[in-house]
Amino acid sequence: MSLKIKPAKECRWDQLSLGEVMLRLDPGETRVRVAREFKAWEGGGEYNTSRGLRKCFGLKTAVCTAFVDNEVGHLVEDFIMQGGVATDFIKWREDDGIGRTVRNGLNFTERGFGMRGAVGVPDRGNTAASQLKPGDFDWDEIFGRQGVRWFHTGGIFAALSATTAALTVEAVKAANQHGTIVSYDLNYRPSLWKTIGGLKKAQEVNREIARYVDVMIGNEEDVITATKNDWSAILWHGGRFYESRKYPELEILDRVGGGDSFASGLQFGFLSQNDPQLAVDYGAAHGAFASTTPGDTSMATQKEVEKLMKGGSARVVR
Amino acid sequence: MSLKIKPAKECRWDQLSLGEVMLRLDPGETRVRVAREFKAWEGGGEYNTSRGLRKCFGLKTAVCTAFVDNEVGHLVEDFIMQGGVATDFIKWREDDGIGRTVRNGLNFTERGFGMRGAVGVPDRGNTAASQLKPGDFDWDEIFGRQGVRWFHTGGIFAALSATTAALTVEAVKAANQHGTIVSYDLNYRPSLWKTIGGLKKAQEVNREIARYVDVMIGNEEDVITATKNDWSAILWHGGRFYESRKYPELEILDRVGGGDSFASGLQFGFLSQNDPQLAVDYGAAHGAFASTTPGDTSMATQKEVEKLMKGGSARVVR
Amino acid sequence: MSLKIKPAKECRWDQLSLGEVMLRLDPGETRVRVAREFKAWEGGGEYNTSRGLRKCFGLKTAVCTAFVDNEVGHLVEDFIMQGGVATDFIKWREDDGIGRTVRNGLNFTERGFGMRGAVGVPDRGNTAASQLKPGDFDWDEIFGRQGVRWFHTGGIFAALSATTAALTVEAVKAANQHGTIVSYDLNYRPSLWKTIGGLKKAQEVNREIARYVDVMIGNEEDVITATKNDWSAILWHGGRFYESRKYPELEILDRVGGGDSFASGLQFGFLSQNDPQLAVDYGAAHGAFASTTPGDTSMATQKEVEKLMKGGSARVVR
Amino acid sequence: MSLKIKPAKECRWDQLSLGEVMLRLDPGETRVRVAREFKAWEGGGEYNTSRGLRKCFGLKTAVCTAFVDNEVGHLVEDFIMQGGVATDFIKWREDDGIGRTVRNGLNFTERGFGMRGAVGVPDRGNTAASQLKPGDFDWDEIFGRQGVRWFHTGGIFAALSATTAALTVEAVKAANQHGTIVSYDLNYRPSLWKTIGGLKKAQEVNREIARYVDVMIGNEEDVITATKNDWSAILWHGGRFYESRKYPELEILDRVGGGDSFASGLQFGFLSQNDPQLAVDYGAAHGAFASTTPGDTSMATQKEVEKLMKGGSARVVR
Amino acid sequence: MSLKIKPAKECRWDQLSLGEVMLRLDPGETRVRVAREFKAWEGGGEYNTSRGLRKCFGLKTAVCTAFVDNEVGHLVEDFIMQGGVATDFIKWREDDGIGRTVRNGLNFTERGFGMRGAVGVPDRGNTAASQLKPGDFDWDEIFGRQGVRWFHTGGIFAALSATTAALTVEAVKAANQHGTIVSYDLNYRPSLWKTIGGLKKAQEVNREIARYVDVMIGNEEDVITATKNDWSAILWHGGRFYESRKYPELEILDRVGGGDSFASGLQFGFLSQNDPQLAVDYGAAHGAFASTTPGDTSMATQKEVEKLMKGGSARVVR
Amino acid sequence: MSLKIKPAKECRWDQLSLGEVMLRLDPGETRVRVAREFKAWEGGGEYNTSRGLRKCFGLKTAVCTAFVDNEVGHLVEDFIMQGGVATDFIKWREDDGIGRTVRNGLNFTERGFGMRGAVGVPDRGNTAASQLKPGDFDWDEIFGRQGVRWFHTGGIFAALSATTAALTVEAVKAANQHGTIVSYDLNYRPSLWKTIGGLKKAQEVNREIARYVDVMIGNEEDVITATKNDWSAILWHGGRFYESRKYPELEILDRVGGGDSFASGLQFGFLSQNDPQLAVDYGAAHGAFASTTPGDTSMATQKEVEKLMKGGSARVVR
Repeated sequence: MSLKIKPAKECRWDQLSLGEVMLRLDPGETRVRVAREFKAWEGGGEYNTSRGLRKCFGLKTAVCTAFVDNEVGHLVEDFIMQGGVATDFIKWREDDGIGRTVRNGLNFTERGFGMRGAVGVPDRGNTAASQLKPGDFDWDEIFGRQGVRWFHTGGIFAALSATTAALTVEAVKAANQHGTIVSYDLNYRPSLWKTIGGLKKAQEVNREIARYVDVMIGNEEDVITATKNDWSAILWHGGRFYESRKYPELEILDRVGGGDSFASGLQFGFLSQNDPQLAVDYGAAHGAFASTTPGDTSMATQKEVEKLMKGGSARVVR
Repeated sequence: MSLKIKPAKECRWDQLSLGEVMLRLDPGETRVRVAREFKAWEGGGEYNTSRGLRKCFGLKTAVCTAFVDNEVGHLVEDFIMQGGVATDFIKWREDDGIGRTVRNGLNFTERGFGMRGAVGVPDRGNTAASQLKPGDFDWDEIFGRQGVRWFHTGGIFAALSATTAALTVEAVKAANQHGTIVSYDLNYRPSLWKTIGGLKKAQEVNREIARYVDVMIGNEEDVITATKNDWSAILWHGGRFYESRKYPELEILDRVGGGDSFASGLQFGFLSQNDPQLAVDYGAAHGAFASTTPGDTSMATQKEVEKLMKGGSARVVR
Repeated sequence: MSLKIKPAKECRWDQLSLGEVMLRLDPGETRVRVAREFKAWEGGGEYNTSRGLRKCFGLKTAVCTAFVDNEVGHLVEDFIMQGGVATDFIKWREDDGIGRTVRNGLNFTERGFGMRGAVGVPDRGNTAASQLKPGDFDWDEIFGRQGVRWFHTGGIFAALSATTAALTVEAVKAANQHGTIVSYDLNYRPSLWKTIGGLKKAQEVNREIARYVDVMIGNEEDVITATKNDWSAILWHGGRFYESRKYPELEILDRVGGGDSFASGLQFGFLSQNDPQLAVDYGAAHGAFASTTPGDTSMATQKEVEKLMKGGSARVVR
Repeated sequence: MSLKIKPAKECRWDQLSLGEVMLRLDPGETRVRVAREFKAWEGGGEYNTSRGLRKCFGLKTAVCTAFVDNEVGHLVEDFIMQGGVATDFIKWREDDGIGRTVRNGLNFTERGFGMRGAVGVPDRGNTAASQLKPGDFDWDEIFGRQGVRWFHTGGIFAALSATTAALTVEAVKAANQHGTIVSYDLNYRPSLWKTIGGLKKAQEVNREIARYVDVMIGNEEDVITATKNDWSAILWHGGRFYESRKYPELEILDRVGGGDSFASGLQFGFLSQNDPQLAVDYGAAHGAFASTTPGDTSMATQKEVEKLMKGGSARVVR
Repeated sequence: MSLKIKPAKECRWDQLSLGEVMLRLDPGETRVRVAREFKAWEGGGEYNTSRGLRKCFGLKTAVCTAFVDNEVGHLVEDFIMQGGVATDFIKWREDDGIGRTVRNGLNFTERGFGMRGAVGVPDRGNTAASQLKPGDFDWDEIFGRQGVRWFHTGGIFAALSATTAALTVEAVKAANQHGTIVSYDLNYRPSLWKTIGGLKKAQEVNREIARYVDVMIGNEEDVITATKNDWSAILWHGGRFYESRKYPELEILDRVGGGDSFASGLQFGFLSQNDPQLAVDYGAAHGAFASTTPGDTSMATQKEVEKLMKGGSARVVR
Repeated sequence: MSLKIKPAKECRWDQLSLGEVMLRLDPGETRVRVAREFKAWEGGGEYNTSRGLRKCFGLKTAVCTAFVDNEVGHLVEDFIMQGGVATDFIKWREDDGIGRTVRNGLNFTERGFGMRGAVGVPDRGNTAASQLKPGDFDWDEIFGRQGVRWFHTGGIFAALSATTAALTVEAVKAANQHGTIVSYDLNYRPSLWKTIGGLKKAQEVNREIARYVDVMIGNEEDVITATKNDWSAILWHGGRFYESRKYPELEILDRVGGGDSFASGLQFGFLSQNDPQLAVDYGAAHGAFASTTPGDTSMATQKEVEKLMKGGSARVVR
């Protein structure tokens, strides 16, 4: 069963995401608590899908988010520009000079190894993104005049604050009203909801959001070790299950962001071919690739993803 | 004119500082806004003096501060342990999982080069240190039963919040009452005072603090370029000026923290020889060394500092 | 005397450049011939101006160039995306698998130190850019329908091959006819012209090009050492000289690309304020900044450039 | 069945190879298309065997090849010197300053991880090596007066151009006539032959070469993943098969160059003991070691290879 | 059966170790013999247990050792300070300027990969530690007045020289007499005993030592590959065997120091709960963690170790 | 006045040096005592001249030295091979497994910055080189049958031990008898002579050596700062002074080894042109270059040195 997706020629954007983009600080093969050197990446569950759609699959994507106008904010912007995701809808907030009232989100994340799992230390309180609120974006301009084929957001952004929860509801409703496909990644994390109403509030918000959602994404990790994983995906759509190609004992370099790359590939499958089986296969293959490189996002190409979907192996290309 | 300093044998600590310790993220020779890799250091104006006194001059020092109990907090602790400063008085706060209510302070700082000045992006809002308040430390135990020869704090910590201002007053008062020498580095930064009362409040707090201070430190930068500097220091003490050896056209690798290393050397001069002229000379030489290495703190040895004070040159040692 | 520049609202692009973009491989503080590790950057004399206008000054810019469709081509594209320069006009050429018939340009460049000068080893034969020819770009679409306020190209691109010389003539002519301001950086390099007609051909091509040029740029290095330089610039415009602020004994980290950043700032001065004195001041200040960071392009911000123009010093910003 | 190999004391060289040596640029654990830093190595299928014979097995080896006389050429020479392979027969070509008419070969190669295969981007068009031609080397001096026990070349070099094909024929013929053992690695790569005659030409050249070849090498990859591999080798010699020790599920760090290290070990087996079973075992063990370190060539020692051949395990040596 | 361990409140130190601490130079994923860059760590079999007890388990520990008073000695001290192990009992020896009469121990160690085993090149002759002798430490002060709950040393230190063998006997005897629990890691290494009496002397020394030992530790490696290992441990205590949780096919990043981290966890089990089954489980889990990070010592936390003991998996923590 | 140098065609070696080669561990811009990462280089006063003559000036050189046959010894060999200096005369000593009886020399050296001087920590006690003794080399074979034009050694090697002093005398005598030019770099270092007889012994040895020396080299540092230096050289030869071109305020990256590169250039001047004025100019220019790159040895080319001698500036070469 296919989705009713607007034609590309009527829309300025193939996909738009709403979420926070953080600076990831990655200690490589060592651990955060003893590191003397960090690699930097950008990442954010909702944004990662836009980046994958643009950098791997070549679609036109943008992100709705907010940063403080300082060096760190512009570093994340520098990564987003590298990722090719349009920066038109970024809200820049004035710096208070010390990060007291408004900040940019940071994420110290180590990738784990073997039986030592990945560890993330999000430092995202009072961020510019968490202070976004209804009315900050002109949805009629975005979904209406400019046009967007697919809108993606998720439960991490919705849980940042009471205002982001309200903004998320506002956004999915607006997207839905303008005929834009809406996908939502549940990504339930207790630590985020804790101080803003807990599970009860999460259910209430998600129930409201669900009314406007076309594709609901949820995933359950079952990690063998941080270095090896049985990987596959299932899609429930139009009343039946679609199962992806299986990747048993997938070797993993950095599993953070694998789920987001799944969501990204899934959206591409629908946007390009509007076929649920292809969608789940694109998702699983793209997610698998993302686990073979450092950072939250994939470095794969569309050709590689499609070769893998068809059962390709790891021979040297030359 | 000398100070009335308690004898070492009556005190467990030669020096104690009160202040925030942040994780410094340093892009090396490139800039924060395009960096892909950061070196990590620890730093904090008040703490830097304790570290210099311990690591360069071999005294027994400790720091009163607070961290969130997560990987980043323990990374900074790991640096403090490396610096040899006692961690006995660190307050560990429970992690909320996302840095919404309480955080560890961060500082993205680039060192500058030539006419491009150093740039710092402190991200220190809502930190555990800024939430310290009167009553958090048992000053009678610390200054009384354990004993401290010298107590140092400054205007950066006092400006973090209304509660740190109050705590600073409480601390200098307690130190003074127990006969501990008190030094205070004014370090006035408008961005810090802005939201908690501005210049007026700063003056009010500093005036109150000044009543208990034995050595008041202030410095005025006069930077030629980020790579070259005329360096010297002046001390007003006991009614007259003491001027340090002059270091004209000092070549600078990373000037951040030079003032703190001055304060550190100054304290050593008093603590070891109780001589204002030696104090200002130790301060200037230690500060000069700190500018020749990366990071906020010096990597010099006491022998090197003393050789420099006496006019030593840069011949190869072997 | 000001230029007759099209209003921004009538044009999709503030500036467009035509030239080759190479992958720069930089051994840092060591030398190419013994390096075991290289930093990567992108660079190209003409393109560097578009990047500066976009990343430092926030204008909308694009580059006309060509790459082979392989991993290296996409790495340079990745840098261009990071630089924010639009990739719409990049021509992608099919890879022959070994770089026999068409290649991407490479540039092994070491920055020099003190009396050891910078050394560049361009490896740019048979590149996709050098095979560009008249007819490859639809100038009527670009300069006409889309609209461009400023077009920049130069003598390096014109010298790549007989076809790029012809394309350069075609482009400046078209730009001129559509009322776009044309600037041209002479950048005469004998090694490039040698096999395609030498000085005589260069003069012939440049004379033809000059007929359509509004702003002709040439500069003459006078390097004290690779680490220190007297820096300033002169503009001949509307029958008189404009002299920039002088930067005596400027400390230099990496001087490669300083001239291009001058040209970039110059264009911004005209585009934003249409004032020759401001133009030469923007140029000199932007070029000075570019020399304080690694890579071909500047990492400065507009605010920093303007502060420097007004005589700002290198004090720590915090 | 043993080979008729000249005694070592009659020859200046134990082994000589003819082939191209390229600069390999390796992005480590990330991918070429997003890399910001590259490790450098040297590599070339034919040369790699000489390097292994010298650095691992201590024989006297040299390489016949050509470079442009610029910094990159001398960087590759620097690597060859590090490898201990004699540089006496390197032809140095004058630099044209831009790599238009003659170049040094480059190879951007990423190692792959798990199901993401290794990717190579050879940039070897118009290289000095590809312009080598009959008459460039004085074979009578080399094989006659100086003396060579074993000569190795292969199908990659033969496919670089019509002149290298002809030179290869000239060389194997000369070697054969002087009683030097000749080995040839087929290494058929369609992309190389494509523009110089395709499969038909390849077969014609190889048929001519085969007349002078004593040991013909070919291998077929069967890669499980880029990180794990079943490894073993088979030799057809003197009318029967010799099978090496098997290495099931060999863990792989960088598989590029494994086949060349096999050829290298094989030659050592013949040169040192003239025994086909030992030869295939040396080859397989040496190739296995090469896969556990980065770069094209092995970093193993003869002692380690021999211990592995005899079934040694990976216990800590101390 | 539990041990008779002194209560914590009667002792200044939970644990004290006697041994050498070396500077480990680690080439990362490449090999020592071709490295151009080394990571530095500290390590020493006996000391590693103190570090684990302090950094992972939070106990108060110190090390008895000696260094030359030069930059390298202070670098190792810098690591020990980072590890939180008290430096009170370090003996500083005067530098002779060239390392002729007394030195600091060094250890070039590569971690191995797959079937290529780890390789260690200890350079520890004539070290300050090896010149330690009976009488150097005031055991009555240490074990008597200050108080120590657990003393650990081992067969590596005992084998450094005739004087360290004698010192070891002196130390375990003194510890035993003061009621301190004594553990001893046999760690028999022929190369160490060779020039000071061989196996015969080793047995004689160990027999004498054994008289005062409460917990004797020995382990036998059975390495599948350098990258994968079946890991578990057995404790013989009070007349019966205690077997740890098993870790089949444990993925290994750097196995050096795994045995020491086992000994460290084992001691914690006894010190904290005085239970042999828990002790062997703490030991095995702590040793397993140490194999997932670079360097000789673990970077695990107590919480992680305990989660692993109870069967925890490698899910992302966030 | 020229020297009587044997013609090149009668000699296998242009130059031969006798000395120790150490592994240099270099913390880059930070200091040894807090480093977490080291770059590796090879270096040794006598050897550095052979390396410069080979790598910069293209002569055939070799070194007489000794190493322990372990991974570190082979790492230094790997560097010597990279330097192109023949390894034929290296004596390999059996490893004792722990560095107790025989070792490879190490040198932790930081380069200094500004007024912070360079610091070297040689760790060269009991090295294989220091155990070399008369009779170890067959001088008749080397100076007689093979032939050497120039022999260089110096006071560092002579001071390593009583046996190296004796070997040095033996060597210079033999060289002199075979008509080989002998140069000797006094390089007096008190720390080396201290335990083997002090100044008195040094004078005695040097007096004996001087009888066979043709060119005696000595230099006196006069360092302004570690980053800037007035550089020039004077040669006393044939009864008069020859003064080099002066390099005032030379900018310095790493001054270690500058004197050796002077000696190297000086030898080249004599060997190639037999002219004392040219010799001192080659020496000064080569030494100046060595100070602009990291490591003990120069990375300059002959062309660059000669351009500098003639007054060349630091313009970009392209």
